[in-house]
This record gives sequence, structure tokens and C-alpha cells, in this order.
Amino acid sequence: MKERKIGILGAGTWGMALARMLTNSGNDVLVWSAIEQEIDNLSAARVHPNLPGMVIPEALRFTKSLEEVCSGKDILLFAVPSVFVRSTAAKARPYIRDGQVIVDVAKGIEPETLFTMTEVLADELGKEDGPKGLRLVALSGPTHAEEVAQDLPTTIVSASPDQTAAELVRDVFTNTCMRVYTNADCKGVELCGAMKNVIALGVGISTGLGYGDNTRAALITRGIAEIARLGVAMGCNLQTFAGLAGIGDLIVTATSRHSRNNRAGFLIGQGRTPEQAVKEVGMVVEGINALPAAMELSERYQVEMPIAKTVNAIVREGMSPADAVRALMDRNPKDETAAGYQDF
Amino acid sequence: MKERKIGILGAGTWGMALARMLTNSGNDVLVWSAIEQEIDNLSAARVHPNLPGMVIPEALRFTKSLEEVCSGKDILLFAVPSVFVRSTAAKARPYIRDGQVIVDVAKGIEPETLFTMTEVLADELGKEDGPKGLRLVALSGPTHAEEVAQDLPTTIVSASPDQTAAELVRDVFTNTCMRVYTNADCKGVELCGAMKNVIALGVGISTGLGYGDNTRAALITRGIAEIARLGVAMGCNLQTFAGLAGIGDLIVTATSRHSRNNRAGFLIGQGRTPEQAVKEVGMVVEGINALPAAMELSERYQVEMPIAKTVNAIVREGMSPADAVRALMDRNPKDETAAGYQDF
Repeated sequence: MKERKIGILGAGTWGMALARMLTNSGNDVLVWSAIEQEIDNLSAARVHPNLPGMVIPEALRFTKSLEEVCSGKDILLFAVPSVFVRSTAAKARPYIRDGQVIVDVAKGIEPETLFTMTEVLADELGKEDGPKGLRLVALSGPTHAEEVAQDLPTTIVSASPDQTAAELVRDVFTNTCMRVYTNADCKGVELCGAMKNVIALGVGISTGLGYGDNTRAALITRGIAEIARLGVAMGCNLQTFAGLAGIGDLIVTATSRHSRNNRAGFLIGQGRTPEQAVKEVGMVVEGINALPAAMELSERYQVEMPIAKTVNAIVREGMSPADAVRALMDRNPKDETAAGYQDF
Repeated sequence: MKERKIGILGAGTWGMALARMLTNSGNDVLVWSAIEQEIDNLSAARVHPNLPGMVIPEALRFTKSLEEVCSGKDILLFAVPSVFVRSTAAKARPYIRDGQVIVDVAKGIEPETLFTMTEVLADELGKEDGPKGLRLVALSGPTHAEEVAQDLPTTIVSASPDQTAAELVRDVFTNTCMRVYTNADCKGVELCGAMKNVIALGVGISTGLGYGDNTRAALITRGIAEIARLGVAMGCNLQTFAGLAGIGDLIVTATSRHSRNNRAGFLIGQGRTPEQAVKEVGMVVEGINALPAAMELSERYQVEMPIAKTVNAIVREGMSPADAVRALMDRNPKDETAAGYQDF
């Protein structure tokens, strides 16, 4: 495999797990972070505090210069939290060349614009002094960073309407531990990544209420169905939702005790207020942040999303979790396939 | 809700959990078992040995007479293990009336005929002296008996091409804890129920090898995709596989440590022979029994089923689990949706 020059923006667990993997498979990798102290610590300690078992290879290099990380690279990887994608893009804009291949791994919907992350990148980098002909790819799937850091077998989706770009990313990220599928439906892949956290929050609430695996499987199955309904209304491909970035990622998020969304939901189901739950989890709970966008998309596209709506009622309108989940079960019975992904 | 007369054939955990639920929601329920000792024990102790926390309501009655359980019922429920469905049907044939509504909850494919369980019932009960105009319904979904026994919220699919029968079963089984969806695609629902155990076995093997949640989610996602490919080739509805009896049931089976298939696979992944694993689990491992039918269906319908084939190679052909799973990851990369459910 030809060695590629790869610049990674963001040194969180996912960025660093990918940085190590790409270095070990023979690429020339440079990592930047907005937090200078983080760069100092990582380059000295060669260990990430949240991935304690992972040794950072010597060949992996760090920089505090946004210009350096963006210059002369075959691929740029945006691995900053979704709330920082636009501001990072704005700062990076002067240094990104025309036709650059950019991979985004942040998952989210920008609340004000309802843009996905590659749409935010296209919008912000495309401002008048910015680079032309960018080739944007979303990389998403059922991928705990902790497991990729241990070389455990993982699958992921390289999504872009630009097939050549999606295939380049597939080829660069494929190795004996990672199997990459391409998908032209970038928007569907990104919608899944943002919305799955809302369903995972609902699954956590159900577990916190004392409900079992039957309820969890029902919420996951019907949860991806309502995300798919929304996606189809937005022009996405139905099959994306049955794929690795859809149901696959939702399964990982909603069945793992390590998921923050699942954990926050659990605490809410047990009786904490949403504020207490967020405080106790101690990190950003993406599912809570995604609720306004979910409600607005549901209304704009006139799509019923009963599970997201129930989670919203609990988290943002103070409805009792037990009453809310009971109401979800008590609605009129439905035909599963006639309605199918079209209706809950 | 009108009280219905319901006869249940089989007193295992699932038959008894449903018997209790139907009694408590106001139906007149009579349970039969081929094992006379079991009937004596259950009617005396009012507790099932494998559902220790569940009290059997006084109103629930037992019988040792196949004629009595079959006579004058609105609904007959077949809840015997799949290997006994044909022989039980043969014995019950003289007592079943024309036009009887029969619900099957056993999951499996008969190896010799490749029939689903309602097809076995239709075949065996339809022999010349048998009842005419039977109305067969498969009831299937993500349903641990232990949780239904505790009134935990559960969803299930009432599947039949006979819409009125499917709706009758929906109405009788619906209550505050169980939400029933109808589906005309009975064959698809039954195929999922039989084949999911093969994938669950594969997931167990992967966990036994030390692989993590990323691999598990990939196997579940791509596993239902290959079952769906087979189903579509057999004339089933693609949406069934994305539903509660499809991905929903597979999620419950493949993420629960209590699943025998998952457990047997885990032991095989850890190095036990399949024979040792079955012995250690101490119960029927349906996924192993389903392998010959899976391989034969895959060949007959010319459908690629790489996960089922890998599980078969490990369990029946002595391939090393580590080599087999590695081979599964190393195949050529694919486009996810262009191939989609059509290809792995």
C-alpha cells in the first residue's frame, strides 16, 4: 500500500485511535489539536489519558500549527467534537488547498442550520476566500475507539457522493482489522450518526426504569425505523439505515454500558433530572443536544418520530419517564410492514 | 375484551409465560404437555422450575388430554419445541376442528423438508383425515420468556397471510405490557426466527475469540442482511427483516448472555469442540441444528451467506475459529448499499 500523508485535526480518543491505526499501516500521520497542552502531553507521554492501553507509535507526529497539519496532505481528517467543526473549519480555511479530500468523523446536526457535519464543512470552507472543489467524505459506523485502539475487528462506512473519494478513503483505512464499505448516501450516513444518540438515550431511560432486553430490542428496532422514515423524507437511501452506520452503530451505542447517552438515560430513568444526569456523566451527552434538531426535522418533514418525541418530552418537558414509556406502548396497534419504516 | 378459550400445547417457559399472561388478561386458558409428570408438578406447585419468580394464576388450568386441549377453543397455541411440532400435530389432528385458528411460537426449519413451522403444521394437519381451512399464524419477536413473565414491556409480530386471523391474534395478545404488530409475511417472520440462531452462534464465537462490541455489531448487521437476501430470494418481504421479528429478535438473541446459542458459540470461540460446547450448555443449541438447513437453502436459492457459511465451517468442518473470522474480514471491500442486502 502506498504511504499517504494524513493530517488529523483533533486529538480525542477517536482521532488518536485512527491516528495510531493509520501510522501502523504505513502512513505518514500528523496530529493537531486546538489545545496546546494536549499536544505537549501526548507527544511526551506517548499515551492518551482515555486510551491507557494504547501506545502511540514513535512515527506518529504532533503539531500545534494548523497550517502545518493542513498543508500537503493526501487526506485531512476532521476529528474534533461536532460543536467545534465550524469554528475549526473557519480557522483552517486559509490553509486548505483546492480539491482536498476531507474526511469527517464527528457526528451531529448543527442546531441553527440543521446541516450535517460535511454540510457544515462545505458551507464554512466554501466561503469566498476558501478552497474550491473539496471532496468530502463521512466515515461512520459501529466503532468504539477503545476497540480500534486494540486492533479488534471493526467495520465502518466511507460515505460520499464522490465515489473516487469514498474509494480512496476505503483503501487508506482498510487493513487486517478494519473493513471499510463505501456508500454514496453521505447524508443518510450522517443523519444516522446524529440521531442514534437520541434513541440510545431512550434505551437508557427504559433500562433505568427497570425494563429489560425485550423493550430494549423494540426501541432499537423501532428507533432506527423512525430515523429511516425521516431520512427517506429527506431524500436518503432506505438501505443506509439497515446498514453499519445505521442499525449497526445504533446497536453498539444502545447496548454498551460505556455509552454516555445510554448512561445519561439510565440515570434519568432512575429518577435524576436531566441536569443531574448530565452532571453525573461529566461529559457532553450528544443525544440531549440532538433533541432540538430531531424535533425540528420531524416537524419540517412531517414525519412521526414517537420515540424521539417521547425522549424529548421526558428530557425537555419534564414528563415522567414511566408515564411516557407507558404511553408509547399504549398507542393503537399497527401493521408492521404495510406501515413499516413509514409508520411506528 | 371478550374472554377467549385458548388451548396451549407445550408447558415450557415460553408456553407458560404466555399462558399466565393470557389468563391474567381475562382469557380461559388450558395447558397441555406430552410429559404427564410436568402437568402434575405445574398444577400442584403453581410455579415453573425455569421461571421461579412467576406465580401460575389459579384460573389457569392444566390437562393431560390432547383431545380436551384441542376441543372448543377460539385459539390453539403450539408451544412445543420445533423438533416436536410435526409429531404433536399428528397426534392432535383428529381433535382439531375445521377453520381452527392456530398460533405457532416454535422457531425452526424442518431439515428434511425445509418447511417453516406453520408449513409443517399445514402439511401434517392437512393430511386427508385432517381439519380443513386451518388459519395459521406465526407469533415471533424479541421476547425473553423471563421478561414476559414479569410483565416487562414487550413487542411481538402476529404474522399470517390471513389478515383477519393475524388481527384476532393481535387483539387477544395485546395488553398493557405486550404490543402486537401484524405482518402478512409469515414466511419471512419464520425464516428470521430460525436463522437468527446461526448468526447468534457466530456472534458468540467472535466474543469467545476476544473480539468486542464493534465486531458484534458488524456481525449482527451483516447477519440480518444475509438472512434478508435469502428471504427475498424465497419470496419474502425485505421489510420483515428490518422489523421486530428480524433484526429485533436477532438483537435480543445475540446480545444476551442468557442465549444458549450465544453461549455455545462463546465456548467454541474459547477453544471447546462443538460437542463439548453443546454438552456444557446442557440444552438444545438451535443454531447448530439449523446449520444444515441454512446451507441447503443458501445453495438452493443461490444466495451468498458468508457468516452462516463461516459458522458452518467452524462447527461442522472443524475450521479454526480465529482463521475463519479472519477470512471473513479479509474479503474484498464492497459498496454497502449498491450491494446492500444483495451482497455482503
